[in-house]
Amino acid sequence: MTYFSDSADSDRHQTQQAILEATHQILLESGYNGISISQIADRVGISKSVIYHYYDDKESLLAEFLDVAHERFLEQIFGQEETTPRDELEHFLTLFITIPPVGCESETELTQLAKTYVELRTQSISNPDYRAIFTDSEEDIKRRLTETIEAGIDQGEFKPVNPERTSEHIITFVDGVLFRQATTESIDSELLHSEIQEHLADRIYR
Amino acid sequence: MTYFSDSADSDRHQTQQAILEATHQILLESGYNGISISQIADRVGISKSVIYHYYDDKESLLAEFLDVAHERFLEQIFGQEETTPRDELEHFLTLFITIPPVGCESETELTQLAKTYVELRTQSISNPDYRAIFTDSEEDIKRRLTETIEAGIDQGEFKPVNPERTSEHIITFVDGVLFRQATTESIDSELLHSEIQEHLADRIYR
Repeated sequence: MTYFSDSADSDRHQTQQAILEATHQILLESGYNGISISQIADRVGISKSVIYHYYDDKESLLAEFLDVAHERFLEQIFGQEETTPRDELEHFLTLFITIPPVGCESETELTQLAKTYVELRTQSISNPDYRAIFTDSEEDIKRRLTETIEAGIDQGEFKPVNPERTSEHIITFVDGVLFRQATTESIDSELLHSEIQEHLADRIYR
Repeated sequence: MTYFSDSADSDRHQTQQAILEATHQILLESGYNGISISQIADRVGISKSVIYHYYDDKESLLAEFLDVAHERFLEQIFGQEETTPRDELEHFLTLFITIPPVGCESETELTQLAKTYVELRTQSISNPDYRAIFTDSEEDIKRRLTETIEAGIDQGEFKPVNPERTSEHIITFVDGVLFRQATTESIDSELLHSEIQEHLADRIYR
């Protein structure tokens, strides 16, 4: 099973899944400016016309890609059975702030993902379609996170914090981690990890 | 007095100041992809060859631009006389999290600045020179902020927090604000403003 094909996609055409999977790989390898319809077609082993059968252009293919990736992301965090609100919150943060092994020189997969994500999201500055996509997906994550925090309060796991405010803060923090990770060498993940854990213990967990 | 010419620059050639000022204006109007040497020359009213006398190419001009802008930024925050550590910290945060007036439809200058900054900084993903510039400037801000926090603790204004950790957290938060502001419509500045004020009152201020 690959990232872009699982049971939730049983009605999605197999070729489309292969196209999205190839898009994902090429984005990670070459970034937003390095990706083209011909490259995706080559990777899948189909002709460009097959891709144009499904998508008008590179932008609409990437819009679909972002949409599916967003759904996958939400499922991974919030769609799990038998998790507590605290597990969900921890899992959400752990996905963003992973401490690379000490002495690890090579670029971690997380940094590569952060770079791809930041590069795509920066298209929002000049492209209103991207802006709408990323605004929607951030609103969506904010809503889910707020529900998680509300559930934590209801179940007595969390202190009676303001759920909207807390999720707004967490999302800003996580976006900052991604942006710094993608664009500088200055981030100290270990320090941030301990800071956020202390913050959660102090302000949110009972 | 414009942003790129003040007493600290008395020895910088007047033409260079005009070039940097025009760069600043065009970046705000048209973004990174919209700026060219000819456009800058037109704006200043000089020929392209004059610009090439000072700079090898657009990249080295932008590198100089970023360097000067960074120094100006540091002076604005940390170079003021008769400020307390608390004033410096508040001033730093206020520069990033300004609440636009209610009902204000037009794009605020801050959002436009955030867009330009995020667009330039995203060049770090594919360009090692930019990466070095933004890593250095972030390290620099982190160092100054850490010193501010240390001074606040020494002078009894702040609780005995971990200065490095606290500045790492604040920088991540502020980078998150900029990134969200530049790339989505989803940020709620008012909520963030009250959250960060409460956070400071609770964790940092005595």
